[in-house]
Amino acid sequence: MEEWKNNIRRVTPYVAGEQPQETDMVKLNTNECPYPPSPEVEKVLKEVDVNQFRLYPDPEATQLVNALAEFYQVDSDMIFVGTGSDDVIANAFQTFFNSDKPILFPDITYSFYPVWADLYRVKYETPALDENFRIRPEDYEKENGGIIFPNPNAPTGLFEELDTIERIVKNNQKSIVIIDEAYIDFGGESALKLLPKYKNLLVVQTFSKSRSMAGMRIGFAIGNPELIQAMKDVKYSINSYTMSQVSIQTGAAAVRDRVYFDETRKKIMETREWTKKALAELGFTFPDSKANFIFATHEGWDIVDLFEYLRKKKIFVRHWNQPAIKHYMRITIGTDVEMTRLIEEIKQYKEKLCL
Amino acid sequence: MEEWKNNIRRVTPYVAGEQPQETDMVKLNTNECPYPPSPEVEKVLKEVDVNQFRLYPDPEATQLVNALAEFYQVDSDMIFVGTGSDDVIANAFQTFFNSDKPILFPDITYSFYPVWADLYRVKYETPALDENFRIRPEDYEKENGGIIFPNPNAPTGLFEELDTIERIVKNNQKSIVIIDEAYIDFGGESALKLLPKYKNLLVVQTFSKSRSMAGMRIGFAIGNPELIQAMKDVKYSINSYTMSQVSIQTGAAAVRDRVYFDETRKKIMETREWTKKALAELGFTFPDSKANFIFATHEGWDIVDLFEYLRKKKIFVRHWNQPAIKHYMRITIGTDVEMTRLIEEIKQYKEKLCL
Repeated sequence: MEEWKNNIRRVTPYVAGEQPQETDMVKLNTNECPYPPSPEVEKVLKEVDVNQFRLYPDPEATQLVNALAEFYQVDSDMIFVGTGSDDVIANAFQTFFNSDKPILFPDITYSFYPVWADLYRVKYETPALDENFRIRPEDYEKENGGIIFPNPNAPTGLFEELDTIERIVKNNQKSIVIIDEAYIDFGGESALKLLPKYKNLLVVQTFSKSRSMAGMRIGFAIGNPELIQAMKDVKYSINSYTMSQVSIQTGAAAVRDRVYFDETRKKIMETREWTKKALAELGFTFPDSKANFIFATHEGWDIVDLFEYLRKKKIFVRHWNQPAIKHYMRITIGTDVEMTRLIEEIKQYKEKLCL
Repeated sequence: MEEWKNNIRRVTPYVAGEQPQETDMVKLNTNECPYPPSPEVEKVLKEVDVNQFRLYPDPEATQLVNALAEFYQVDSDMIFVGTGSDDVIANAFQTFFNSDKPILFPDITYSFYPVWADLYRVKYETPALDENFRIRPEDYEKENGGIIFPNPNAPTGLFEELDTIERIVKNNQKSIVIIDEAYIDFGGESALKLLPKYKNLLVVQTFSKSRSMAGMRIGFAIGNPELIQAMKDVKYSINSYTMSQVSIQTGAAAVRDRVYFDETRKKIMETREWTKKALAELGFTFPDSKANFIFATHEGWDIVDLFEYLRKKKIFVRHWNQPAIKHYMRITIGTDVEMTRLIEEIKQYKEKLCL
């Protein structure tokens, strides 16, 4: 073997949901929003001055940060932006998880956490969710080097009440606690309101779900200015300019349109609720999701078989082989038309089973 | 002190050139291109389908990678793209520089290298340039954990001939050698032609200079597929989707327009050459730059005083306090009009000195 290979970092990368390019498909596998972004985004895009592309973007992404500060009613120095919440969380791992003690996150959760931990050589422990997929706050009352989990959790969709979140943040004031709120806009209550009380709390959100901007790569963290400054210092030690001019401008436009944002998430929540009923009628069971997806299983059916059946019908949902969840599939909430097609195909599947 | 502060990573971030927002300024401080990007970029931007923003971008950025593969006549699996060459090089540091031996880069060079080394806890040594700011290849013939330097070097602008590069790559086949070619398109010869011979060579380039796309954040590396795959594995352990849809599409459009690319860099080289003459007539000396900047000093003058004088005249150039180069300023090549204004202001400065 060539000797230069010895020093290559060997990692097991995160495997994202596939991005099929089929025509006439129903893509319910990566929790994207079925609706386009705010019309304000298109307006701003049309006004973008291409002549400015020759210049570096504003490294502070001031326009976007200020729009977020106004939306969430916090100071600008409490906001960090990055190219998607994955970029933001990866930065947070590197900035905050430098203890010799293990960090803690649930055994069933966003599968990128162990990947970041391995990459940055952070020890971790994964307390088990309870039999209802709930986080047990008492599991997070031990020595640790930091805590992170999504709320609502992924892929279960379960939302933990703010009392539970506060208990964990309050009992871990020696650590930094990151609440990953990628799915908070679909019926949960944000931990942002705890920020005035807890300096060890960092809340992370994304434009990829409720704001329909996955394609433009925008995520952000909100926390006390000292945490945010530490994240910026790490960012400026990697890449001064992460956000493109177009992401900054279109992102700011998306944030400013609160009416559209509220309409979009309301539609998704309504679709989710009728889909839950339809799935229940077909014999599925699932945690009561407050996210833009449903994590469903069926006692009588082979979920992998159904998954493959749907795939052949060009309906893409997500499945994992991890033992505790291998009987589940995660279904992103699409439009009413898409969910109707899903339900119809499942009915067809059922009929075939009954033949 | 709150205990959660103990585990925050403390770093000394890179300090980028300032991004002043004055009207009527001449910005010659961050080596941007004075010309807009190819007209093809605007065309493609107008055709961007905002409705697609709701979807994640292609994680492989295939459209952009294929355009680069065609332009540089290499296979697609030899190309890695990132959000600017800083993102690409940061990834390469993390992927390749994992030895206990120090990596090597020149004492006078791109000042981000020591920042990345500190962030990723990579030991390094910095062999001194010779008295003419030249790299001494014999300094790179010792045990090391990797080598990186720009060619042309920054901030000197000096290009090392491919013989010198090949000697360094050839004599370090136990290490990975990264040639940072941010400024290669302004008269140098790329090390890409060495790739068929050396598997330990990685060439990094950027869209921020010769392609006028600093605002869209695009950089890339070309190397043997095994190196590129290792970089992708690290990337997919941080953030699956770094490049936005718009950066992928506009970047591909920029690459496809070879005629515009050649015209732009030719104009910059012509402006650089007459600017060199004008500066020499004013008593400046400088290494013979093959980049889009000139690194100039003046025996009789106080460069910091001139720097401040130009600043007051809204002409921004770059200056560092590092002892070996504190008598120099780095002047980006702008348009003919901008460089004429610079020369006129320096003449005014000279007249004042002579009063």
